[in-house]
Amino acid sequence: MAPLRSWLSIEPTSHFSLHNIPFGIISTAANPTPHPAVAIGDHALDLLVFTQQNGFAALSMIQPHQAVFSQPTLNAFAALGRPMHRVVREYMQSVLLADGPFPDILERNETLRRAAFVSLEDCKMHLPMQIGDYTDFYAGLHHAYNVGTLFRGPQNALQPNYKHLPVGYHGRASSVVVSGTPIRRPNGQILLDPSAEPKQPVLSPSRKLDIELELGCFVCKPSALGNPVRIDDAPDCLFGVVLMNDWSARDIQAWEYVPLGPFNSKNFGTSIGPWVVLMDALEPFASSGMQNSAKVLPYLDEKDQKSHYAIDLSVSLTTAGGKASTLARTSAKNLLFSFPQMLAHHSIGGCPFNVGDLMGSGTISGDSKLEKGCLLEQTENGKVDIELEGGEKRRFLEDGDTVTMTGVCGGEEGSLVGFGECSGRIEGAMILDFS
Amino acid sequence: MAPLRSWLSIEPTSHFSLHNIPFGIISTAANPTPHPAVAIGDHALDLLVFTQQNGFAALSMIQPHQAVFSQPTLNAFAALGRPMHRVVREYMQSVLLADGPFPDILERNETLRRAAFVSLEDCKMHLPMQIGDYTDFYAGLHHAYNVGTLFRGPQNALQPNYKHLPVGYHGRASSVVVSGTPIRRPNGQILLDPSAEPKQPVLSPSRKLDIELELGCFVCKPSALGNPVRIDDAPDCLFGVVLMNDWSARDIQAWEYVPLGPFNSKNFGTSIGPWVVLMDALEPFASSGMQNSAKVLPYLDEKDQKSHYAIDLSVSLTTAGGKASTLARTSAKNLLFSFPQMLAHHSIGGCPFNVGDLMGSGTISGDSKLEKGCLLEQTENGKVDIELEGGEKRRFLEDGDTVTMTGVCGGEEGSLVGFGECSGRIEGAMILDFS
Repeated sequence: MAPLRSWLSIEPTSHFSLHNIPFGIISTAANPTPHPAVAIGDHALDLLVFTQQNGFAALSMIQPHQAVFSQPTLNAFAALGRPMHRVVREYMQSVLLADGPFPDILERNETLRRAAFVSLEDCKMHLPMQIGDYTDFYAGLHHAYNVGTLFRGPQNALQPNYKHLPVGYHGRASSVVVSGTPIRRPNGQILLDPSAEPKQPVLSPSRKLDIELELGCFVCKPSALGNPVRIDDAPDCLFGVVLMNDWSARDIQAWEYVPLGPFNSKNFGTSIGPWVVLMDALEPFASSGMQNSAKVLPYLDEKDQKSHYAIDLSVSLTTAGGKASTLARTSAKNLLFSFPQMLAHHSIGGCPFNVGDLMGSGTISGDSKLEKGCLLEQTENGKVDIELEGGEKRRFLEDGDTVTMTGVCGGEEGSLVGFGECSGRIEGAMILDFS
Repeated sequence: MAPLRSWLSIEPTSHFSLHNIPFGIISTAANPTPHPAVAIGDHALDLLVFTQQNGFAALSMIQPHQAVFSQPTLNAFAALGRPMHRVVREYMQSVLLADGPFPDILERNETLRRAAFVSLEDCKMHLPMQIGDYTDFYAGLHHAYNVGTLFRGPQNALQPNYKHLPVGYHGRASSVVVSGTPIRRPNGQILLDPSAEPKQPVLSPSRKLDIELELGCFVCKPSALGNPVRIDDAPDCLFGVVLMNDWSARDIQAWEYVPLGPFNSKNFGTSIGPWVVLMDALEPFASSGMQNSAKVLPYLDEKDQKSHYAIDLSVSLTTAGGKASTLARTSAKNLLFSFPQMLAHHSIGGCPFNVGDLMGSGTISGDSKLEKGCLLEQTENGKVDIELEGGEKRRFLEDGDTVTMTGVCGGEEGSLVGFGECSGRIEGAMILDFS
């Protein structure tokens, strides 16, 4: 497909081409109250201003619902459903299109252009959705295999259930934060010497602070208690996708996780990207998933549905000194289960969903050394150094490190559909005094 | 302490004596919109009507905040903080007290009396709080020991971390429902023959549907990301306690739970009682907890703080035919960790809290046969029959069974502080067709 061309100047390498139109929540000097926007090139287009100045004049369908663009989250817009997301996204494309059908709306409307465009640099980004429940899956096959190999050896790396269902656990919604929010190194119970008896933990700042390269997907359609979402209906329940870094404290996790799973090792912070890329924007990059050597049960069978996306992901570490090193590059094609499968599984017992619920994919790794989406894998649980640009080494994160994730679909300049960045800087642990 | 006497007729065996004053959310024929009330004897006292008709005339402190009593949940009231809960509860006691200081407010105000009192039978009860995050702990020592013994033998029943920290996991907030809501038997992946290879699960209604006798505690004070709640400050962050039944599907759990913990086996429904008993109402029944043979770390050390409560708990099963049998009686004294300890641990890494967050205690069992708070323990995972009144037997729940939990403090008639009931009836599984 030839790139769509805008009358607005957009860098060819921009993640926010006219093919994308991701939604987010901004605040600006002119309006410090969080409100919706879309990203285009290096600008945000302020949807509150756009609405107030009659930008939707040529889209009658949205007019009864324009209040959704004065909300502090995207929940109300998401709740309008996928057909409306599609219409609004395509309308925004049409008003930005060179030689488009509605030049009077924005292109020739200097007042609105001046008021509605804000440089991305001048936008403060906020959490795009109010999150009801957050669930984190474990669908990255190579990640699960690599981590399983570390702890149980290659023969038993994957548990017997792994290929039959998207393994997941309930996460903590309250600690999901938007990209740029500093992450404080957590204190927690750690067993310094697992071989010593009796086992006596200490309270300490985590010494094994890690990242997890993930994608998150927001739900836009509620479902009632007791009513599973069928796999065929699941795609219409999905709003869009964000980058996600599920920060993890491996030493806290090792001590706490039996028998009920990760807890404080995960709930001190989960960063998500500020821009929600709508499912429709990802559609051109849809493909079938990995081959699953297990035959999944019919409720998880997607048949010919293409619901995996060729999103190229990368993660880099910038030291306090300012040197950046790429830690990994991989692809979202390494997920064994898709978001529709996750939703169908999550709801099969009747668990209800609300608009704004968030599902994380689990750490995404490829099958080669440079495709590992967390430090636990890269350093074999702290046994192997990572060599950074400038000569520093890492096994886990140090205070002052900034981790930045990116994701983008489509290799062709001028038509990229990307997520921007998801970043967070590690602050030193709180000093606790219990004397 | 001699029972407080009300001018209102209250049965001596009522859970809702003048010593209690629990808060809940009701709707009535006169006002079908959910709104706050307190329970007293066999009546609800409608706080919206009470407020509108100037019932708080003699309590100036609450007057700037009276809008909290027109909300559909107790969150806004809870957010006023424990000193205000105390003042409001004591005021409600004083207006209900025989020969009390404010006879003109309610006792001699027939208009308000007629408008504000509603028989509990005529109230529809609603979820008392909007729940942000729900966490379930595992603090019932005997339960953890009994279950551990079933799966790992008595020598390894308790994991090494068990006595050092309140083990917990994040639950699903969206499926927490108020007592009386029917619970549909979940479908899920089950491994019928764990010894067969290759392991091939089926999709089936759960055959091991179970209960868990728990208490829940609501948080009333927010805390910020990165800021632990100190154990000394934790009691002021707690709003009140409810009965809780954490319905569980043991066969789904057995297959799904490695390596990340329970998921669909728990998220199809968690029932809570409709009446929140405030922490102040429980205060007279406070005691030290069980002796912990491990010395906990200072951040969990309550010193002389008494934050366990002698709540007598019972659970009964009523068959579809209407015969009721007591399944267990035990006491909340069987929790190894208190709610303040749970909150201090949960937040030690910086996990933030919101008003309305819910913490479950974990299943409460005593150390004798008739004190086991779930069927998994009672039937040794389905190996031993429970004999019910009327001749029926159970290993796990059948469709049409109703499970009812009760809890009460204080043995003395006329001054009971109880929780009423938490009940749920099992409906047959949804019939799924994936052909």
